[in-house]
Amino acid sequence: MVARILKNKVIIDNVKEASRIYNKFYGKMNEKLELSLVEACYLLEKNRIEIEKEGKKIELKEFIENSLSTYKDFEIKYLVYRDLRERGYILSISNDFLLYERGKKPPADPSFIVKALSERAKFKIREIMKWIEEAGDKRLLIGIVDEEGDLTYYLTKFFMLKGNVKEKEYEGSIISLDDRCIVWEKKLAEKLKKNFIGRDFGKYVQLSLMEAAYLSKRGAKIFRNGKAMTTNEFMKYTKKIQPDIEERLKVYEDLRKKNLLPKTGFKFGSHFRVYDNEAKETHAPYLVHVVKESYETTWTEISRAIRLAHSVKKEMIFAVTKNEEIKYVRIKRLTP
Amino acid sequence: MVARILKNKVIIDNVKEASRIYNKFYGKMNEKLELSLVEACYLLEKNRIEIEKEGKKIELKEFIENSLSTYKDFEIKYLVYRDLRERGYILSISNDFLLYERGKKPPADPSFIVKALSERAKFKIREIMKWIEEAGDKRLLIGIVDEEGDLTYYLTKFFMLKGNVKEKEYEGSIISLDDRCIVWEKKLAEKLKKNFIGRDFGKYVQLSLMEAAYLSKRGAKIFRNGKAMTTNEFMKYTKKIQPDIEERLKVYEDLRKKNLLPKTGFKFGSHFRVYDNEAKETHAPYLVHVVKESYETTWTEISRAIRLAHSVKKEMIFAVTKNEEIKYVRIKRLTP
Repeated sequence: MVARILKNKVIIDNVKEASRIYNKFYGKMNEKLELSLVEACYLLEKNRIEIEKEGKKIELKEFIENSLSTYKDFEIKYLVYRDLRERGYILSISNDFLLYERGKKPPADPSFIVKALSERAKFKIREIMKWIEEAGDKRLLIGIVDEEGDLTYYLTKFFMLKGNVKEKEYEGSIISLDDRCIVWEKKLAEKLKKNFIGRDFGKYVQLSLMEAAYLSKRGAKIFRNGKAMTTNEFMKYTKKIQPDIEERLKVYEDLRKKNLLPKTGFKFGSHFRVYDNEAKETHAPYLVHVVKESYETTWTEISRAIRLAHSVKKEMIFAVTKNEEIKYVRIKRLTP
Repeated sequence: MVARILKNKVIIDNVKEASRIYNKFYGKMNEKLELSLVEACYLLEKNRIEIEKEGKKIELKEFIENSLSTYKDFEIKYLVYRDLRERGYILSISNDFLLYERGKKPPADPSFIVKALSERAKFKIREIMKWIEEAGDKRLLIGIVDEEGDLTYYLTKFFMLKGNVKEKEYEGSIISLDDRCIVWEKKLAEKLKKNFIGRDFGKYVQLSLMEAAYLSKRGAKIFRNGKAMTTNEFMKYTKKIQPDIEERLKVYEDLRKKNLLPKTGFKFGSHFRVYDNEAKETHAPYLVHVVKESYETTWTEISRAIRLAHSVKKEMIFAVTKNEEIKYVRIKRLTP
């Protein structure tokens, strides 16, 4: 079966042969079959077609080298397309790939939009959110090609968190030390222990700066060097120690409003581990990392964060802050 | 038993009582017993002593608030000291803590130097290396106090890696695509597959930029757009794609010289996963991350990297480059 390169496409003229390929969900049919270079390359590699350029048969080697110069990101896109096809998926081609769930095929609607990226691409949370929005009712799958050509897939979506940890009011004094706060009062300490806020310090309770700020908004009073502080005065003090505390507190409060209980996620390299109920010894199902909308990092870093979250059976969620708004983006590794 | 605050120390005058405390390895004996504020605080919290300030008995609350203002980093240091004592360890106090292995006690030599840090401290690899050197024949343990006062300990040391993967010479052509290279020649491809270099691409082999650069130093020839390139020309090209490739290649080559086989560590969020033998399906015992001597990051990030490494049963090693020199620093989480 002979196909011919025509600019950025590969054409199969013979109607019967064109139909046979088209029926396997490759290309677009307009009298002739038009294959994208990615599709044609796959069929060539698998010896399902032969390709001619200016009347002369060309080999996979030349076809790939030729495509690199005429098709943007051909290499990355081809590796993703090839991997998903080899796993038995049906894909069609638009700006990105459209992927059909197993068992579905055109003319059904594809379930996923697939973006193909190099591990060297920058991870920009703003871009990810834009892609999720653009994907609309389809799910966004990002295929990352690593240095050696191996694939990792990330499913990304806006995520609704909720739990059943009710918010409460507090009464009593919190003493600000340097890096943290402490509660010496028996009554408040006992209530905090019961509500799983802070951490035991003998008979007393130590609080993170975030917990103390939250409690001061819920009725408790903070004292430093013997003087009472308003929440605002305390926040001004803590900003010197923890410059991003305002963003973090905003997310802390929002999670509390959603009836969740955030605690430090330091041991997991994230800002919060988040519980959805108050039972002691319960499992925290989420890791939440607070970032600004302008957050950029490497995909290597993202790979590390998500892999770790999964290894401790938690979901990795980025809380993206922009002015007063918070969006939660879940990124999950998927083995297709 | 009454002790009294004297500037930055707590003094026990009564010889009999002083001896009883001293025999449990607290303080320095110079006729009287001199306790550091950290030691005195611990004994006070555990109700083993009473403390007077200017003739008046003071409570733990006041003692802690008082110590914060007179002893640098009292809060962080106390939390580490307290945690290790509660775990049954004997510590003595110098600029840092000196920790005795279980079963050992003064006058034996302490086995560890313990640094106490807040999770908010910056991680600076240069500083870590300085501390390892200063620790001499003692082992360096870093205790990190998180936001909520929980402790994580990291054992850090210079590390010697070695394996039994012999270096070989190669002959044949490597074709540079954009983001990676490919080997179309059957003979070279087979040799590479056998030696576990690169990754299968059908009958062919794809190589990372690093692997290609290494192979070009071991006899293979790289071609781009039909033209042969020297290793230097290729490196110049790759630097546009991967700005830190020189540092990484330096480490790649050094690991090969140590008879180790590095492959990409992307899935684990590090530069390399490193094998010490060539058997297929073998386990890579190390993750190596290449950083410059000026590398700084957050302890949260380090916590994530090390936790992930341990969850996949690998050791986390930082390869620190400075001009031609490479130092390997292993950081390992320890549960004391």
